[in-house]
Amino acid sequence: MNLGNPKGLTELAFYDKSSFSLSRSERQHIHSLHQKKFRYHFNQFVLEGVKLVQEALLARYPIQKIYVGKTALSKDWLQEFKALVNPELLRVVSDSEISSISSLKNPEGVIALAPITTREFSTDLPRLSPFIYLWEINDPGNLGTILRTARWFGITNVLLSPNSVDPYSPKVVRGTMGALFAIAIWQNVTFKNLKIYAANQEILLISADTSGSPVSSQRTNQWGLILGNESRGLPDSILNNSKYIFSIPRYGSGESLNLSVSAGIIMNELCQNNRG
Amino acid sequence: MNLGNPKGLTELAFYDKSSFSLSRSERQHIHSLHQKKFRYHFNQFVLEGVKLVQEALLARYPIQKIYVGKTALSKDWLQEFKALVNPELLRVVSDSEISSISSLKNPEGVIALAPITTREFSTDLPRLSPFIYLWEINDPGNLGTILRTARWFGITNVLLSPNSVDPYSPKVVRGTMGALFAIAIWQNVTFKNLKIYAANQEILLISADTSGSPVSSQRTNQWGLILGNESRGLPDSILNNSKYIFSIPRYGSGESLNLSVSAGIIMNELCQNNRG
Repeated sequence: MNLGNPKGLTELAFYDKSSFSLSRSERQHIHSLHQKKFRYHFNQFVLEGVKLVQEALLARYPIQKIYVGKTALSKDWLQEFKALVNPELLRVVSDSEISSISSLKNPEGVIALAPITTREFSTDLPRLSPFIYLWEINDPGNLGTILRTARWFGITNVLLSPNSVDPYSPKVVRGTMGALFAIAIWQNVTFKNLKIYAANQEILLISADTSGSPVSSQRTNQWGLILGNESRGLPDSILNNSKYIFSIPRYGSGESLNLSVSAGIIMNELCQNNRG
Repeated sequence: MNLGNPKGLTELAFYDKSSFSLSRSERQHIHSLHQKKFRYHFNQFVLEGVKLVQEALLARYPIQKIYVGKTALSKDWLQEFKALVNPELLRVVSDSEISSISSLKNPEGVIALAPITTREFSTDLPRLSPFIYLWEINDPGNLGTILRTARWFGITNVLLSPNSVDPYSPKVVRGTMGALFAIAIWQNVTFKNLKIYAANQEILLISADTSGSPVSSQRTNQWGLILGNESRGLPDSILNNSKYIFSIPRYGSGESLNLSVSAGIIMNELCQNNRG
């Protein structure tokens, strides 16, 4: 930023005088949010990167704070951010301070804090279908990619079993490419409750498993697609309670497909015939 | 390992007395292979993990060395390895030495070295179709997953443009889950040469791009699927020279799908009608 430039000065005046330096406790707080226990203690998570923060703002997700590096003052996206956010939530800090709170090798100059959205699943909920239920999913990259794919296919509810990876971990948040703000995530949903709920709502439970038959597209969108753990797959207790078990035909070799690739292929097939 | 156990002692005697310690130059050599320039200088790459080394051995890939941690002496897989490999190539070292040469947080106790397979693409090659051509692919996770998916669908040739990520980098090798040994990889293939080759061989070039129409399955398997860079997609010079441009219908929202998910969805659709 050129401080001799009147526009630059106006920009600076826009922010509170105490900017450009983070307190030690602020830095510690942001760092603590890289750990799950602190995220849920403070009920807050970190979003990083221009695109992701932009998606959150456009989705009117209740961002609580945006830290912007000095270099970013000259960027176009900052103007857009200012139009979308309460200026009091924007805080300019030095680029080295952005680096010190970033979890990326090449920080993009913007880091935001936002509240975790907690949803309580119950067997009395109205219809959420079509939905995806992930049983003990373990890999943050897979969860992020599955959320992104679900959004593409218009599946706006994703349910997670107990012992699944935290959807608010930095790697998941990044991998969703903004889908986190477009999808309702339900955590700690036991299969026992899911089964009761699906029966109440007359929702077809469809499991993905190598023991299954080729996917047939469904004429209804009253279905829930169930995907298992990356190495263990799904337990019999879930397979035995599914209306259909689908698999992806193998024309070559190999033991399995990557979980998020399987999820994408099956979502694509299920969605093909049930939309306008 | 229980040293008081006669079986354990026999196992130990199986190996050369100089084992249990890596020389400094050996360690440095293995570390150097984490960098692309040294991999191509020595024409060698590192494979890590039981499953991956097992896949390489079963595929008769010419493994040059296998380092096994002491703890592994009691493992079942070691017996299988011994049946598949020249015992002179097996080298037992201490667990801490395995850790010191591993690129993983939790090493599995086995690390192998193998030669890079270099293939020279030319416009006179016999038919390689169906194949996948990746243009300036950037992310090692995506490349690994695409190779794994291609293997599943029986697509045994993958062509990489110049400026693509190195298929022998540790993250790609790991992500392939063994597909690296089942697929022929052709590097540095320019689109100019690919176009001449495809015309010679009457192979349909099919590009994946959001500007395209829904995938239609092909009755022939004389096709090559072209996928672009994660952020820039494909250049017009490639799109304009493709017989078909296919995209994946979006029923929801979001700017794009993950590259390896898109690749999987399109491979699945292309393969559906052209096999027995």
